Amino acid sequence: MIVVTKHSTSEEEILKLMEELQSTYPVQIQKITGSGCTVLGFIGDTSTIDMMQIQEDRRVERVMRVSEPFKKANRAFHPDDTIIEVGGRKIGGKDIAIIAGPCSVESEEQIVEVAEAVKASGATFLRGGAYKPRTSPYAFQGLEEDGLELLKIAREKTGLPIVTEIMNPHTIDKFVEDVDIIQVGARNMQNFSMLKELGQTRKPILLKRGLSSTIEEWIMAAEYIMAGGNEQVILCERGIRTFENYTRNTLDLSAICAVKKLSHLPVIVDPSHATGMKFMVEPMCMAAIAAGADGVIIEVHNNPAKALCDGAQSITPEDFERVINKMRRYTALEERQISGGR
Amino acid sequence: MIVVTKHSTSEEEILKLMEELQSTYPVQIQKITGSGCTVLGFIGDTSTIDMMQIQEDRRVERVMRVSEPFKKANRAFHPDDTIIEVGGRKIGGKDIAIIAGPCSVESEEQIVEVAEAVKASGATFLRGGAYKPRTSPYAFQGLEEDGLELLKIAREKTGLPIVTEIMNPHTIDKFVEDVDIIQVGARNMQNFSMLKELGQTRKPILLKRGLSSTIEEWIMAAEYIMAGGNEQVILCERGIRTFENYTRNTLDLSAICAVKKLSHLPVIVDPSHATGMKFMVEPMCMAAIAAGADGVIIEVHNNPAKALCDGAQSITPEDFERVINKMRRYTALEERQISGGR
Amino acid sequence: MIVVTKHSTSEEEILKLMEELQSTYPVQIQKITGSGCTVLGFIGDTSTIDMMQIQEDRRVERVMRVSEPFKKANRAFHPDDTIIEVGGRKIGGKDIAIIAGPCSVESEEQIVEVAEAVKASGATFLRGGAYKPRTSPYAFQGLEEDGLELLKIAREKTGLPIVTEIMNPHTIDKFVEDVDIIQVGARNMQNFSMLKELGQTRKPILLKRGLSSTIEEWIMAAEYIMAGGNEQVILCERGIRTFENYTRNTLDLSAICAVKKLSHLPVIVDPSHATGMKFMVEPMCMAAIAAGADGVIIEVHNNPAKALCDGAQSITPEDFERVINKMRRYTALEERQISGGR
Amino acid sequence: MIVVTKHSTSEEEILKLMEELQSTYPVQIQKITGSGCTVLGFIGDTSTIDMMQIQEDRRVERVMRVSEPFKKANRAFHPDDTIIEVGGRKIGGKDIAIIAGPCSVESEEQIVEVAEAVKASGATFLRGGAYKPRTSPYAFQGLEEDGLELLKIAREKTGLPIVTEIMNPHTIDKFVEDVDIIQVGARNMQNFSMLKELGQTRKPILLKRGLSSTIEEWIMAAEYIMAGGNEQVILCERGIRTFENYTRNTLDLSAICAVKKLSHLPVIVDPSHATGMKFMVEPMCMAAIAAGADGVIIEVHNNPAKALCDGAQSITPEDFERVINKMRRYTALEERQISGGR
Repeated sequence: MIVVTKHSTSEEEILKLMEELQSTYPVQIQKITGSGCTVLGFIGDTSTIDMMQIQEDRRVERVMRVSEPFKKANRAFHPDDTIIEVGGRKIGGKDIAIIAGPCSVESEEQIVEVAEAVKASGATFLRGGAYKPRTSPYAFQGLEEDGLELLKIAREKTGLPIVTEIMNPHTIDKFVEDVDIIQVGARNMQNFSMLKELGQTRKPILLKRGLSSTIEEWIMAAEYIMAGGNEQVILCERGIRTFENYTRNTLDLSAICAVKKLSHLPVIVDPSHATGMKFMVEPMCMAAIAAGADGVIIEVHNNPAKALCDGAQSITPEDFERVINKMRRYTALEERQISGGR
Repeated sequence: MIVVTKHSTSEEEILKLMEELQSTYPVQIQKITGSGCTVLGFIGDTSTIDMMQIQEDRRVERVMRVSEPFKKANRAFHPDDTIIEVGGRKIGGKDIAIIAGPCSVESEEQIVEVAEAVKASGATFLRGGAYKPRTSPYAFQGLEEDGLELLKIAREKTGLPIVTEIMNPHTIDKFVEDVDIIQVGARNMQNFSMLKELGQTRKPILLKRGLSSTIEEWIMAAEYIMAGGNEQVILCERGIRTFENYTRNTLDLSAICAVKKLSHLPVIVDPSHATGMKFMVEPMCMAAIAAGADGVIIEVHNNPAKALCDGAQSITPEDFERVINKMRRYTALEERQISGGR
Repeated sequence: MIVVTKHSTSEEEILKLMEELQSTYPVQIQKITGSGCTVLGFIGDTSTIDMMQIQEDRRVERVMRVSEPFKKANRAFHPDDTIIEVGGRKIGGKDIAIIAGPCSVESEEQIVEVAEAVKASGATFLRGGAYKPRTSPYAFQGLEEDGLELLKIAREKTGLPIVTEIMNPHTIDKFVEDVDIIQVGARNMQNFSMLKELGQTRKPILLKRGLSSTIEEWIMAAEYIMAGGNEQVILCERGIRTFENYTRNTLDLSAICAVKKLSHLPVIVDPSHATGMKFMVEPMCMAAIAAGADGVIIEVHNNPAKALCDGAQSITPEDFERVINKMRRYTALEERQISGGR
Repeated sequence: MIVVTKHSTSEEEILKLMEELQSTYPVQIQKITGSGCTVLGFIGDTSTIDMMQIQEDRRVERVMRVSEPFKKANRAFHPDDTIIEVGGRKIGGKDIAIIAGPCSVESEEQIVEVAEAVKASGATFLRGGAYKPRTSPYAFQGLEEDGLELLKIAREKTGLPIVTEIMNPHTIDKFVEDVDIIQVGARNMQNFSMLKELGQTRKPILLKRGLSSTIEEWIMAAEYIMAGGNEQVILCERGIRTFENYTRNTLDLSAICAVKKLSHLPVIVDPSHATGMKFMVEPMCMAAIAAGADGVIIEVHNNPAKALCDGAQSITPEDFERVINKMRRYTALEERQISGGR
């Protein structure tokens, strides 16, 4: 951490500031005296220091971090890729996970039919929403607990582990019991109290990037879960909010490269929510693999036009078959493979 | 709602589509046949229709709303300003509320001292964080339950009603009992399950705008609370996330004008979090009143340099005295008044 | 400027890097050795150093500026407000300029009628577009040279100095001869070759902020003009592009406070283009004055519904009379005055 | 185009509005009467109608386009891909162009060495900046005319056609004579007067997307050039400005899919400027091909650490060899090929 002093600050005042900082924080401080300003460098662990508080000081012009504020998620301290294994399927390393299924679970017939179709094509996991975050209180909110039951039936019939979104800390125990990977949605990425509770579980967490979260904030949200002892976090890029509104969000594929450099955690891509347009799902899946993603999560519906939510971005099982086959050629080119069950 | 068909769609297919839509939704449909495309207009209540689902249809090019998706919060159906009264103080109409206090409650001495100071200067409410949303799991997370107790002591001593942020649905009962206005933070603006639970209470809710939420999504979040029967919602603009990073966020004062036109709910401004810089607090308070806001919420700390969080944006009680006095002249110019207790 | 080295860099390599940097740049370099990384501080004038080039070095983790990259526009080196005087009217200091007129000059009758009306109400300058930047090549592009002639007639009849936008360096000589303040539009804010040519003139330049330009880039664009010797630059905040699309752009009033702190140049506000909605013009004018702006530029049209461009944001002369009268009360409250001709 | 009337508007007023609109614009108008509002549909060519002007009318609530405002660039009226041929090399259709070279031309030795290296690896075109848009007036501005001469020498020696950026309409004649593809930079994307002049030439134009331009505005900028008769426009996605600042810009690869659907023009990707980080160039090149791009433009420098600009994003000729070889496998997978000279 670097503290830059104000132009007008006297040498005496700077020495006093150094003393104060040194007595407040568990760090060593060194200084560089410039022509206009002085720079103080903090040596030691600065991850718990609140920059904003130092910024407040009347003698301080600016405070800047020179190292990342995350530890457990940091690749610098954990150079090898984290590989997460669920029900015999791996995510990370050489293994690419394909998570597929409908936006919402609607009926036993629907979820089982989709599950069987995506299983037949080679999907690694089944996704499906039981609790749905909807912008309008008047829109369909999901089948909730009944939806979880239907997902369990589909898992029973296909053997595919299930991924579904949690909306509320009240239901954590139920999710831990019923679900294979617990998804935290974009709107809850900084629901810190829920992240802390999920840190107490030992379930893999699929953590979606917030609509306007920076890459650093996203990794810090993973750090919240990991700080509690749960190190099984899968990051998921799902588009960020920008001025462009042709697509629902702007898929940030360079974020994959950034996460791979900064962290050892696996990272996957959600082209369905990112673009909101089914014709973009196929090319964005290929681009995700090319960018180095450890998987994709795709909406597949057996009758998109009748889907109770987000039909516009769902592809059919036939489309999915074509997409996964093409992805196989892309993963081979990257000397990786689609993760399958044993 | 307007549905635009694809260029190539035959007259026969369009008639079939109209029939299908009419049998699915409780609306009347009329059509305009253009040179290239056909436009279908929906007549009736479209607030529960999922645009995305219709967009999915192979014959549909585009779906557009022509009216707002909110009802209870809509000024069109409720032309008069909503005025919220808490402990004898009003927010809305002619009354402007000044909410002041520290970012975090730190000790009895601190919160009582600040409360007495802002009371003496004429503040309407006391604010103070007990549960703090922090980007880092290693940063100070607030005094939590103890913080609530200290706020109650400060209320006892000054008579100022208290405003504090809720982080977790587990604590709703406690907040309803202890707090006068429950604040929902920007990061929880779309924590829909918590919004629904708050809709079941009868406490006034201060609903901050999400970091990247549109004005429409913000009002829809209020609609979630109102749909549950709790119509006492105060909106709070606190800056949005943009590419500009000189300020912490970009304060969107034109949003005040927009909310006033679209909704009857009161709307206040948080210049401290919006800008993150104390020298901007005074001019942005004046600009908020000039823009038509129904109040401001300001961070005041008796020793900002020692604040456990967000010192950089806190002003001192002396600054606050000057700011509120200047605000009195601005409110007078707008023929309004700062709301005081009886 | 601060250079942070990579974790793995040896002491020897760091010393070699320091030598190389010292021999390349006209600065002194000091170092702070931390636990993980080393920080090099540059002492001296770093404004001409290309950060990106240093960032490239294999031993470098990060390069950060600790001081602003602008000099002539920097308040640190020029503490007093710059006051620009045009035709006996001042902008800056205690004086607030009100620039009013139609989006486009359409006819002699129109421009003279509007000019006389805004003059009668107390406007300081007349604005009007002769060359119009339009998103579509098929939209009305302005009366061009004829428009300039009509503006001159309006100036002749009212005595109001004229402000109009330049689109093309070919016309600089004509603008210098005909116009009192040359406006550079948002889309040309980084048209560096035109900025350089304007730096060679001695005309006041009204420099609009680019749609997505940071405050620093905006001041750097002023620096381009000032580096050429023309120090008469007026900055104009006109809204930035964000995800919010209820308003045309998002008016960033906190940018006024930032510019006032960073630079000595006057800064005004354009509420008409920022919001794109005439009902917001009045409150945003008041908020601009409250925020500390040195003026406003407002679209006024004698028949907005028939305006050839941007009618949606133009107010009538009657509205303008009301707005300027209210602004007088706001400027008085700030102990300032609307600048008038002699 | 759709006009929605205000709630309160009487039937009589609506009929009057329809008459007025019909007499002003060369379109047919039909109406749908809803419960709250009335919708008027315009039938005919609406591309020259100014929405903003209609929005102004006191009876109008909202105006919405239902079709794109561009014609010549519109795929609807020109279903086949446009293939541009320069010096025997094709861009578009099955052919993928690889444009490579340094950010700035620095010396004959440098540009010839890089040109020979990228030629040997299989590049299609040589790029190099002679006129450089720099944020600071104090930074290196390019070799200007001398740079053009050096590019010509490099073309002479390698046979690679040259691509370079124009900054100023004064130099158009020279560029037409000397250059094979004229690049318009992001900051000049809406320099409409220069676009119009380029529309009068018959040179291929490489049109970069503006930092904050929507896809529609970008295609409209192409339309400006095409409206003048020059239909040889190549679009180039180079990252957009968002809140994320880990990368210099956010590369929007879904824009490739959007452009392909909306327009017949070829579209390429600039991963170097988009990300600003050389380690991202390789994966983003692969992702671009996977997304359907018609080429990439990459910065290659023989000594990035000594580059006079943007070294941080330049790769070496050895890196380039590896990248282009990997791209060959990706293009083969898409059944396309890297375009080579004859």
